[in-house]
Amino acid sequence: MTILESAKKGLITDEMRQVAIIEEVSPEFIRQGVATGEIVILKNNNHKNVVPVAVGKGLTTKVSASVGMYDSKDSIAGEVEKIVTAISAGADTIMDLSVRGDIDSMRKSTLITTCKPIGTLPLYQAMAEAKMNKGSSLEMTVDDLFEVIERHASDGIDFLALHCGTTMDVVKRAKDEGRLDPLVSFGGARLMGWMIHHNLENPLYENFDRLLQIAYKYDIVLSFADAMRPGCTQDSLIGSQIQEYIILGDLITRARNAGVQVMVKGPGHVPIDQIETTVNIQKSLCKGAPYFVFGPLVTDTAVGYDHISAAIGGAISAYVGADFICYVTPAEHIGLPDKEQVHTGVIAARIAAHAADVANGIEKAIRWDLEMSYARKDLDWEKQIELSIDPDTARKMWTERSDDFSSECTMCGKYCAMKIVSEFLNKKKVG
Amino acid sequence: MTILESAKKGLITDEMRQVAIIEEVSPEFIRQGVATGEIVILKNNNHKNVVPVAVGKGLTTKVSASVGMYDSKDSIAGEVEKIVTAISAGADTIMDLSVRGDIDSMRKSTLITTCKPIGTLPLYQAMAEAKMNKGSSLEMTVDDLFEVIERHASDGIDFLALHCGTTMDVVKRAKDEGRLDPLVSFGGARLMGWMIHHNLENPLYENFDRLLQIAYKYDIVLSFADAMRPGCTQDSLIGSQIQEYIILGDLITRARNAGVQVMVKGPGHVPIDQIETTVNIQKSLCKGAPYFVFGPLVTDTAVGYDHISAAIGGAISAYVGADFICYVTPAEHIGLPDKEQVHTGVIAARIAAHAADVANGIEKAIRWDLEMSYARKDLDWEKQIELSIDPDTARKMWTERSDDFSSECTMCGKYCAMKIVSEFLNKKKVG
Repeated sequence: MTILESAKKGLITDEMRQVAIIEEVSPEFIRQGVATGEIVILKNNNHKNVVPVAVGKGLTTKVSASVGMYDSKDSIAGEVEKIVTAISAGADTIMDLSVRGDIDSMRKSTLITTCKPIGTLPLYQAMAEAKMNKGSSLEMTVDDLFEVIERHASDGIDFLALHCGTTMDVVKRAKDEGRLDPLVSFGGARLMGWMIHHNLENPLYENFDRLLQIAYKYDIVLSFADAMRPGCTQDSLIGSQIQEYIILGDLITRARNAGVQVMVKGPGHVPIDQIETTVNIQKSLCKGAPYFVFGPLVTDTAVGYDHISAAIGGAISAYVGADFICYVTPAEHIGLPDKEQVHTGVIAARIAAHAADVANGIEKAIRWDLEMSYARKDLDWEKQIELSIDPDTARKMWTERSDDFSSECTMCGKYCAMKIVSEFLNKKKVG
Repeated sequence: MTILESAKKGLITDEMRQVAIIEEVSPEFIRQGVATGEIVILKNNNHKNVVPVAVGKGLTTKVSASVGMYDSKDSIAGEVEKIVTAISAGADTIMDLSVRGDIDSMRKSTLITTCKPIGTLPLYQAMAEAKMNKGSSLEMTVDDLFEVIERHASDGIDFLALHCGTTMDVVKRAKDEGRLDPLVSFGGARLMGWMIHHNLENPLYENFDRLLQIAYKYDIVLSFADAMRPGCTQDSLIGSQIQEYIILGDLITRARNAGVQVMVKGPGHVPIDQIETTVNIQKSLCKGAPYFVFGPLVTDTAVGYDHISAAIGGAISAYVGADFICYVTPAEHIGLPDKEQVHTGVIAARIAAHAADVANGIEKAIRWDLEMSYARKDLDWEKQIELSIDPDTARKMWTERSDDFSSECTMCGKYCAMKIVSEFLNKKKVG
């Protein structure tokens, strides 16, 4: 029985109890959310050392960091270093998006590097192997693709990114509606190329029941990837993007009926005024499935600072209902992030997630802010550093800047204005 | 005749024409906004080399960077370097908030370093001089304070930060209502100390007509500072903060009747869910006066990354109606920013301002994003760098990361999936 089936039957599983403790909610709250599909629990039943993570309504907003071998110079050791960096910066999950090299070993290394849930995008490996074995990624067969999906599943991958809703109809709409940039999604674009080359429907859509069987067997969360996410603010909320959600909505019903948990990945680039609509339409069309947003970037111009642009979009998205933020690093649109940029990307996404949690009344988030405010009022620097979102950086900056900074104020001489006002404000009210 | 008086009389001045060109609106649009008080033009009539900047409804969101000698090690040369850094990063105005050293020379250096409008907070200098000449800042007299205000005005300072609304009633409310941290505003707290020590009402409130005479004479914009801005998310939207706005609302009417332009400074720390209410209540109580927000920070925990926390708050604030963003640097809550942190603070605030402008339909902002999107689609890297919010950083990162990155994709072999889909999408629709 899958987690979803248990929830529907009113059964509280160990995973539900575990995540309930972390989230400071009742196991029954988790069970109800899982049963309706508004909460998913990331935990492949073959992933033995995983600490399950819950994503969805009423829970803290989660952050995912993506790594993977993409360039010929990338190595497993280098990517593992990035994973360690991302986890120590506070990422809740890791996605291995390798498109080349020894992807099997990379995945296994990822799984033993951390006990966080892991996601992958199996199409990349299926295409890479078709290239290696048959000379071109276009020679990938449907069986090749499903063999790789099952390989990832049986290895213990907790969530699989799959472009199930990118049907030929959606591709045609993208062509006809004149999107400024339809080729945003690396995997989605290649899948479309395969579909057009063979004049075949999307194999993940056509063989969705086959996918559900694998997902069911390992109790994997399907993470529907949207090939039509907007790649510039101009392309936000146009037909092909929304049509993909409509199709995903149908697949979500089928998945849930089959006992399989689903979440949906989204934007991309979204101007601030369209974020709430984007989240609302996803929640509506995708039947309350947790929303996993990439950024979104609120302007196209913040090259080198896309983590800040994404923090703005991520915070607003999570405030209005998104559940899971895929980090964006300062290297976005330029190249692949180095370790330091991975760190910065995770912290920026965590600030966005936490700010949304505070605004959404998540008690543990509010308590954290409150503790910091008391530490600040008490001028307790050690406590402030400890409570910082990134204590190592806070300590480093504090050490550097405080060397340079005399906290002593010499303005008032004998009578200190600050002392006077402080005494006045703290005096008990009389009469 | 002041700019405001001209606007009320239906006259379009040179300043209105100048800012209209920059803003891509009609001079009449500017005139109407100035007449209602919803737009202010920063330009002291003694500031000869200034390029006026307009702030307010329907215009691009502006960004201000604060510098100033605060620590014994700070020097005029060091602060001038920060000003040059802030201006080259794109700050629209500079505030010199020096509290020590040769403040007169610092101000004059600021005025000759840039042709951007300059703001100051005269109380700092009045208190510093009282300390120097009489042994304590508490020995500052009302005449001392007004003498410094007039000195700043006659030097050409375009906007003066003044805590006019922090009356004894407000201070008492702060005491009684149990704010977590009432001592957030450096100037405001010292002014309160002075008031309590002497048991006197706020001299800026008591002598408001005297202030208006100076502001009128030099056509200065009064920038009402709020001593009761929240210093932690917990203190947002409590009585003393709002009471100060109510009092400022009365003063705004008096200022406008006297032909003096006014804007109002605000938060601070505000959780995302309270930002819209904060902006709406300011706009309502302060009669549409342009809103100059410090940050706001959306969480208290982002030590070392407060520029990101502030970018989130600034973007949302500007989207819902704030007009002017005071930057927050990564050094906030830790110490004084160095040059690099000044740069980062300005860029983060500009990303927030621009993202809000895109969302608010400001045409020049949308055009900028669109040009970037076309450059990206065309893989025109030179154009992308040129259009970046910080071209130098974009170029540096691009050079570093692209060395490390082979853009060549070798996935498909003879038939390229990307080429196939690209050709398909760009083919003209037939039939």
